[in-house]
Amino acid sequence: MSDVRDISLAPEGERKIAWAMKNMPLLTSIGEEFERARPFDGIKITLSVHLEAKTACLCRTLALGGAEMHVSGSNPLSTQDAVAAALAEGGMDVHAYHGATDGEYVKHLTAALQCGPHIVIDDGCDLTNLLHTDLRHLLPGVIGGCEETTTGIIRLNAMAKDGVLKYPVMAVNDAKCKRLFDNRYGTGQSVWDAINGTTNLLAAGKTVVVAGYGWCGRGIATRSAGQGARVIVTEIDPVKALEAVMDGHTVMPMAEAAKTGDVFITATSCSSVIDHRHFELLKDGAILTNAGHFNVEVCMAELEAAAVLKYEARDNIVGYKLKNGRTVFVIGEGRLVNLAAGDGHPVEIMDMSFAVQALAAKYVLDNKGELEPGVHKVPDEIDGAVASRRLAVSGISIDSLTEDQEKYLTSWAI
Amino acid sequence: MSDVRDISLAPEGERKIAWAMKNMPLLTSIGEEFERARPFDGIKITLSVHLEAKTACLCRTLALGGAEMHVSGSNPLSTQDAVAAALAEGGMDVHAYHGATDGEYVKHLTAALQCGPHIVIDDGCDLTNLLHTDLRHLLPGVIGGCEETTTGIIRLNAMAKDGVLKYPVMAVNDAKCKRLFDNRYGTGQSVWDAINGTTNLLAAGKTVVVAGYGWCGRGIATRSAGQGARVIVTEIDPVKALEAVMDGHTVMPMAEAAKTGDVFITATSCSSVIDHRHFELLKDGAILTNAGHFNVEVCMAELEAAAVLKYEARDNIVGYKLKNGRTVFVIGEGRLVNLAAGDGHPVEIMDMSFAVQALAAKYVLDNKGELEPGVHKVPDEIDGAVASRRLAVSGISIDSLTEDQEKYLTSWAI
Amino acid sequence: MSDVRDISLAPEGERKIAWAMKNMPLLTSIGEEFERARPFDGIKITLSVHLEAKTACLCRTLALGGAEMHVSGSNPLSTQDAVAAALAEGGMDVHAYHGATDGEYVKHLTAALQCGPHIVIDDGCDLTNLLHTDLRHLLPGVIGGCEETTTGIIRLNAMAKDGVLKYPVMAVNDAKCKRLFDNRYGTGQSVWDAINGTTNLLAAGKTVVVAGYGWCGRGIATRSAGQGARVIVTEIDPVKALEAVMDGHTVMPMAEAAKTGDVFITATSCSSVIDHRHFELLKDGAILTNAGHFNVEVCMAELEAAAVLKYEARDNIVGYKLKNGRTVFVIGEGRLVNLAAGDGHPVEIMDMSFAVQALAAKYVLDNKGELEPGVHKVPDEIDGAVASRRLAVSGISIDSLTEDQEKYLTSWAI
Amino acid sequence: MSDVRDISLAPEGERKIAWAMKNMPLLTSIGEEFERARPFDGIKITLSVHLEAKTACLCRTLALGGAEMHVSGSNPLSTQDAVAAALAEGGMDVHAYHGATDGEYVKHLTAALQCGPHIVIDDGCDLTNLLHTDLRHLLPGVIGGCEETTTGIIRLNAMAKDGVLKYPVMAVNDAKCKRLFDNRYGTGQSVWDAINGTTNLLAAGKTVVVAGYGWCGRGIATRSAGQGARVIVTEIDPVKALEAVMDGHTVMPMAEAAKTGDVFITATSCSSVIDHRHFELLKDGAILTNAGHFNVEVCMAELEAAAVLKYEARDNIVGYKLKNGRTVFVIGEGRLVNLAAGDGHPVEIMDMSFAVQALAAKYVLDNKGELEPGVHKVPDEIDGAVASRRLAVSGISIDSLTEDQEKYLTSWAI
Repeated sequence: MSDVRDISLAPEGERKIAWAMKNMPLLTSIGEEFERARPFDGIKITLSVHLEAKTACLCRTLALGGAEMHVSGSNPLSTQDAVAAALAEGGMDVHAYHGATDGEYVKHLTAALQCGPHIVIDDGCDLTNLLHTDLRHLLPGVIGGCEETTTGIIRLNAMAKDGVLKYPVMAVNDAKCKRLFDNRYGTGQSVWDAINGTTNLLAAGKTVVVAGYGWCGRGIATRSAGQGARVIVTEIDPVKALEAVMDGHTVMPMAEAAKTGDVFITATSCSSVIDHRHFELLKDGAILTNAGHFNVEVCMAELEAAAVLKYEARDNIVGYKLKNGRTVFVIGEGRLVNLAAGDGHPVEIMDMSFAVQALAAKYVLDNKGELEPGVHKVPDEIDGAVASRRLAVSGISIDSLTEDQEKYLTSWAI
Repeated sequence: MSDVRDISLAPEGERKIAWAMKNMPLLTSIGEEFERARPFDGIKITLSVHLEAKTACLCRTLALGGAEMHVSGSNPLSTQDAVAAALAEGGMDVHAYHGATDGEYVKHLTAALQCGPHIVIDDGCDLTNLLHTDLRHLLPGVIGGCEETTTGIIRLNAMAKDGVLKYPVMAVNDAKCKRLFDNRYGTGQSVWDAINGTTNLLAAGKTVVVAGYGWCGRGIATRSAGQGARVIVTEIDPVKALEAVMDGHTVMPMAEAAKTGDVFITATSCSSVIDHRHFELLKDGAILTNAGHFNVEVCMAELEAAAVLKYEARDNIVGYKLKNGRTVFVIGEGRLVNLAAGDGHPVEIMDMSFAVQALAAKYVLDNKGELEPGVHKVPDEIDGAVASRRLAVSGISIDSLTEDQEKYLTSWAI
Repeated sequence: MSDVRDISLAPEGERKIAWAMKNMPLLTSIGEEFERARPFDGIKITLSVHLEAKTACLCRTLALGGAEMHVSGSNPLSTQDAVAAALAEGGMDVHAYHGATDGEYVKHLTAALQCGPHIVIDDGCDLTNLLHTDLRHLLPGVIGGCEETTTGIIRLNAMAKDGVLKYPVMAVNDAKCKRLFDNRYGTGQSVWDAINGTTNLLAAGKTVVVAGYGWCGRGIATRSAGQGARVIVTEIDPVKALEAVMDGHTVMPMAEAAKTGDVFITATSCSSVIDHRHFELLKDGAILTNAGHFNVEVCMAELEAAAVLKYEARDNIVGYKLKNGRTVFVIGEGRLVNLAAGDGHPVEIMDMSFAVQALAAKYVLDNKGELEPGVHKVPDEIDGAVASRRLAVSGISIDSLTEDQEKYLTSWAI
Repeated sequence: MSDVRDISLAPEGERKIAWAMKNMPLLTSIGEEFERARPFDGIKITLSVHLEAKTACLCRTLALGGAEMHVSGSNPLSTQDAVAAALAEGGMDVHAYHGATDGEYVKHLTAALQCGPHIVIDDGCDLTNLLHTDLRHLLPGVIGGCEETTTGIIRLNAMAKDGVLKYPVMAVNDAKCKRLFDNRYGTGQSVWDAINGTTNLLAAGKTVVVAGYGWCGRGIATRSAGQGARVIVTEIDPVKALEAVMDGHTVMPMAEAAKTGDVFITATSCSSVIDHRHFELLKDGAILTNAGHFNVEVCMAELEAAAVLKYEARDNIVGYKLKNGRTVFVIGEGRLVNLAAGDGHPVEIMDMSFAVQALAAKYVLDNKGELEPGVHKVPDEIDGAVASRRLAVSGISIDSLTEDQEKYLTSWAI
């Protein structure tokens, strides 16, 4: 039986799900195919992903394919009770509510696994972790899994290296249709949606410091420039730094950038990118945000220690007054700003990620017994299928090679 | 005595005002000067502008200069009760609350004028209208006014043409530091902040139709492209249309654009830009928004009539199902989207507009008796002063002409 | 009888003219109309414009309309002998050759005027000057003229102010279809075509200093950023400086910019923008170019004086070694770089300017006796006609107002 | 003894080399280090690369390090006789002249190899090919080689696969500091320099069709948009096509794009991208160019066959009149347009490639006996060193990891 906060919120949840689904043409079309082919008939899937409207669409898409869904969230703070209620009201087995304690959270995951799933869809490796520890007795029934995040993949690789991972997991996070799109276009936009929405400040004319010039950093830098900001990039890799220069950005060390930036956005995957070395250098009014993982890129602990006064300056913005009399502002407690102060990735981006999830789950099933335990690359065919489908629903055609062209390319490669 | 909704909201209002003021360096520095020079000592000012945090900063800046402020809102829906409470709690004479009826609204304006103001600061000409009708007995005390909006200027020019305008009014709306900045940079950004914030959709890859290629349309088109969208511009002026082409956009009539656009943003100042001629052509899921004035650019009346079903699809988004089975979505009832579904212009943009307001009010006073009744251009010196001050607070220096250069330019112009 | 350098160059000239005409759809379509209507039958036109292929297309367009053309150049260095030969070989009366002495140049202009023209088409006011001095006896026959340049308009206004201008002249230079397009899109591109073509250097990653943020400066800044350069703008006008900031550029005084720029492009219309105050600050290898008029924006005289060594570093590039041991490079002797080191404006830009010329010449004729002596604005109808025609030849349609919309706009404006 | 066309051209060659070297700070600084350390003392290097000024700078840099240089070109049409003369006059052993016959070309390569080189620097694998066929007796002396091009790498890999490659070759072409920069920034700019320089046409407002969205295609698309063009991308890979959509471009098949494009730029590495299927669809005046390799992307043979008339429309532009009466134009015979109609990559781009060459040659020497025969990846340290050096000569510093950060990253990756 489902364990949600308030089943009466179901109608509001349905409205949210309907809006998402309207803008998820990939899941919609996959769902239609699944409904006809019923690939998951008789299959139990346990899913633990941030439980909001877009995730609900993935759950329903899999259910249309015949899957018996058992659902939990992947973070108590990201669970939307109305969405959970809608899924539960619709008859799905749901265990999640917003603000669950750590104990309740584990209880929810455990409950969602009790069914003895054939497939697990994970966001951060928590389900797999439970299955390899407290719930080892359920391992024999598991055909395989899918993992949504970088963090999860890193954990899984460590498990695989140690020889303890007992089933195959598809590295959905690394699929082109996820990684090439959500970092650049998803993060690039949603970070600014969050900053602008939270601050009501003007981006044009601002000096924006982007720490890290990986895919996320590039997306953020592009959108910063696209709003009329001057972009400063900080990097530790000289090749990436030089690419930033050639892309028209200014490159300097953080210790210099700190003195001149108006808005800081970290996207490095590293810790202490902005820390005690920099706080006193910042301009009065500087805004600090993080678009990487966790809340360590801006070292919040050191900032708390350095501040003589801390106050809520605006919803989701905390001001820290420093000894030098200046005040700097942190959005969303230094956590991933597009989640902590926004709606996360745009719907269409998640449509692509979740389309990979749905097809990867089917791939696990179709290749039952064929895949070794370990982390598996999502095959190019799935990436190609997702991208082709996305072009098709957008009414876009592309070229294909003629026989002569194939021959030419083949001969060339000899 | 002030007439506000709930004086206990004052602390929340103070917090909002503090955030705005922190990001309004022009008003801050003007306020500091005013505080020293007290130019408005003994002067009563009645102000009617959208009563939210940024406006409160203008009120306080004028008060620092010695003005006795009497404040109302300019639209019952834009009044923020917390901000009104904060001003009232601080001792200002405030008459405004959110959701006032038409009768209450007029009562508020009237109350704010009862002091017999020397200067009126108007947003849409309502104060001036009252002073020239029901409150004509107060006219003799009025030295002059300032007007914030295009609509107000048009009304004032009509009054001046008919010889009925009895005092000088500064056309703040037309100052370079307002018009060159709020339309392009303010509207350009805030329209997208509102759309992205309301929809959680991805802008990249979308086809965005911008109706009108005036300053607003250009700002919107630039920010659309800056987010990775393809831009289609519709225009009636061939020269502007050709500029759009040269700026890299696609130009076509609305009847064509209607078939291909994902998001529509009107900015024409005209009516029925998108109307019954276009609804049935729109793609399923198309999103209609208006960045011009009023709610006539997207003809809401005709859309209501054409729809077979109407429902709230998400907060501030209404879906209209059409006879052809497609559904189109309207944000914020077709009203100015950055106000109806967002926080209006970014703070720094209003800082510039209100800096012009503050200096224009002082100009009216300094030139008491010198200015004829009628609409007056804000002098270039004020624009220059505001822009220079903005550069200065940003730590930016610029060049000035040498004597030889001045001589060269003068000789050249002979 | 024509006076050209070498009539045997005519075939090469024809080839150049053919290429230009192929890319001048406006002149082509105007020529077709002229050929049918023959508006200039019996009319003599003397034209003095930079005599290269695009200008030849204007001459032939007017001739198709029946005009008897008498042609000279407007600068001996810009005359292309092959083009002159082609026109002469085709039967036109041509007086121009490359490298004419000052005396020969005046003789050429005089010869082209001997016919006693009805209309003069001028580039810099030289024809009008002659007609008001040495050739006053021809004045009675002149119906009017057209002027292509800012310089010419300034001279004509001075003459008009003094009451000495004896016929009406159309200010073609100020028409929207010239000024809004050639400065931004024409100069923006052609300056970079010249710099890149001359230097073979990479624009991406460079720091480009643009002096002046008028229409030319904006066009150059946009194209600089479009190539991956960081843009620094110098200005004397605070409002323009602030626009540059909001457009994402960095603003600083030239004395600062001098230390950091890789490429300098002046577009101010002023003198000594880069002069003795800056030379010693420049980085070794800095490149100086001018996109404004004359060769005074970069003060060549002072640079010559400051240099300890001067040498040709590459075709059209001169290196100046300074006392501090650094070398700076000047392209095209500090003259308008897109002419001195390139092919001038792109063909399509001149197509627009010359379409205005052709229609303005017809307007002068159509309004014979109606126009007062003096400088006349090109009527909006001509701008509208040129822009509409340009859209039409590009296959682009635009909207027009419905009756209801016209009514709305009119009522609104009351 | 050198075999060059005209030794008296040496001064002109010196001037060209001096300009290049002035803008090759990497080679300059490497040369200074080499001069001190003399790593190549006693080493003979045979080099066969397009023999123009930038290549001459590489030769001299290696010579400063003590190398005895034996130089040939890699394509008789790209050899600049003045540059060859300057090198020869300076005492280098040079065998190359412009327009050499195939026989002469082989003779030149053979002559340059007669010294019995320790290291070969190759561009297209011609030296290696000779050493493995006619000049096998020299193989024992060869320590290793470096290869500049994709084509060469493909050939080398084929040789390695067959077990016939007898020495190690560094894949300079695949180094990040080459491939990430020359394709995007080098090709992106130089293609447009060539098109604009050759045509004198306006890019703004044009519809530009870019075939292929690899690194080259992306660079070209970015620069096209940066000039105000609308960009259409054609692709065969759905993921790349979708990236193009998200980057704001329009995607369609070539058969559609053919009807609407003004300028076509192919960058696919495939054959017949534009061929008989498309010619009759093209607009009158369309311009066809190729930025990929060879002259097969635009199928010139089929275009020749389809044309009813062929003529030189302008230097380096040939017009092809088709049966339907339209004329299309091809720049540079469909060969790589930035070489066939321009100066090739900008100097700074080649500075990066050749810095990799110089350091890779040293690496071959330093690791004598350590490297297996076969194709070797340029080690990351060389890429890092080149990028770091480039930042340093630009006066740019970047961050480095603190100990704590290294620890964090390491722990994370466990």
